[in-house]
Amino acid sequence: MSSSQTVFDTGNVDDTSQTVGGAAPSPLACLQACQQCHDTCRAAAFGISPAAAQELGADEVRLLLECAELCQLSANWQLAGSRNGGQICAVCAKVCRQCQERCAEIDGMQPCAAACQRCAESCESMGAMA
Amino acid sequence: MSSSQTVFDTGNVDDTSQTVGGAAPSPLACLQACQQCHDTCRAAAFGISPAAAQELGADEVRLLLECAELCQLSANWQLAGSRNGGQICAVCAKVCRQCQERCAEIDGMQPCAAACQRCAESCESMGAMA
Amino acid sequence: MSSSQTVFDTGNVDDTSQTVGGAAPSPLACLQACQQCHDTCRAAAFGISPAAAQELGADEVRLLLECAELCQLSANWQLAGSRNGGQICAVCAKVCRQCQERCAEIDGMQPCAAACQRCAESCESMGAMA
Amino acid sequence: MSSSQTVFDTGNVDDTSQTVGGAAPSPLACLQACQQCHDTCRAAAFGISPAAAQELGADEVRLLLECAELCQLSANWQLAGSRNGGQICAVCAKVCRQCQERCAEIDGMQPCAAACQRCAESCESMGAMA
Repeated sequence: MSSSQTVFDTGNVDDTSQTVGGAAPSPLACLQACQQCHDTCRAAAFGISPAAAQELGADEVRLLLECAELCQLSANWQLAGSRNGGQICAVCAKVCRQCQERCAEIDGMQPCAAACQRCAESCESMGAMA
Repeated sequence: MSSSQTVFDTGNVDDTSQTVGGAAPSPLACLQACQQCHDTCRAAAFGISPAAAQELGADEVRLLLECAELCQLSANWQLAGSRNGGQICAVCAKVCRQCQERCAEIDGMQPCAAACQRCAESCESMGAMA
Repeated sequence: MSSSQTVFDTGNVDDTSQTVGGAAPSPLACLQACQQCHDTCRAAAFGISPAAAQELGADEVRLLLECAELCQLSANWQLAGSRNGGQICAVCAKVCRQCQERCAEIDGMQPCAAACQRCAESCESMGAMA
Repeated sequence: MSSSQTVFDTGNVDDTSQTVGGAAPSPLACLQACQQCHDTCRAAAFGISPAAAQELGADEVRLLLECAELCQLSANWQLAGSRNGGQICAVCAKVCRQCQERCAEIDGMQPCAAACQRCAESCESMGAMA
């Protein structure tokens, strides 16, 4: 069970992939995209997964960490119902795009590029509402 | 989809409730229990959910925040494959027990008490391995 | 000795008060203003100091925490030499202004209002350079 | 002015070096040692300073980050007056010792080794009181 299910009490979180990047921005989808991007980028920064992450240079490690930290703040502020969440989302989207572009150039780092892309798209939708 | 699915590439995370507190400690179950406890306690600390959280006193808000912060560090270190994760889990279990006991005494805060109990049980198992 | 002295190797950090809000934005002054605002707002949120903080309502506690969290991220990204630091500073300035205005209305919370004002002024200078 | 001066309202924080590792553990000295160790290790992890930090391998970057994260939590909990601060200090001391030992083996990383040693000594004193 996803942690977001309890907090927001949604019936079905498996539809996330349909709503991210869709016409109407979904707060729950954005929260989940930020949390997933955080987890994926952090695990990569520490060389846990994917396997290619064990060969990263220090610059990539630092970009992944920066992305993970901002995704975490963005998710935390959404959980807290912050009225400044949209502004954080807008910056988060930009950092995710930087991380996506770098990861897309590295063999085996596509899982990170994909998580960053999903998060950027969702945060761009939320940021536009701010 | 849970954020942990991608990182650890598990087939089925919906069995979590069966494994938490069971005989063999499960790293994935502990990560998820920490993340869920963080999300639940943070949303409560900021008065988002459950509804009873809007009536909390400042002392309860602070305990919930402390619990959320330590669950977040514990989850983050597990994601990072830290060899010190077990020691953090052991302290996390103690703070979760404090938060569980306080929330259990407040009408409507049972969702937080339950999340804290699950996290404490899972962290106690992991801490015992440290 | 301030922690920033070692990292940036400055000879004299006691001149901070003269440079914050002055003509030229100073990276070291902004880092210190963010760290001081974080420490002040966090100690207040948890009822440690000033004394008036023990009487705060939950809404004020939450605003102080949000301010502290963003000041911490802003300081951390400055320490990390992030090229996205200016964008975070710009959002940080806005949240500090909200916190300053609320604290200025509460008897005994002037230390927080002052720390928020200094941080906002310094972050506005840095954000304008982004 | 150090950020800790305002929060704890001490007259003279420049005596820190005399009290760290001395007979009586000092809460203010421990807070400052944790904050300084965080700042130093984080700046090193991101290749900002010292110069030798630009040549670190990914493993050292990760250890520095883990140390910085735990020092930050330890400082934050001390600021919050947590009654669990001593337990966090005890784990923090162990991680600082690991980071100190690794940094002491690398040319040019002595500033980090020194900050880790000071923080470990101070946290060991505080942890022993828990």
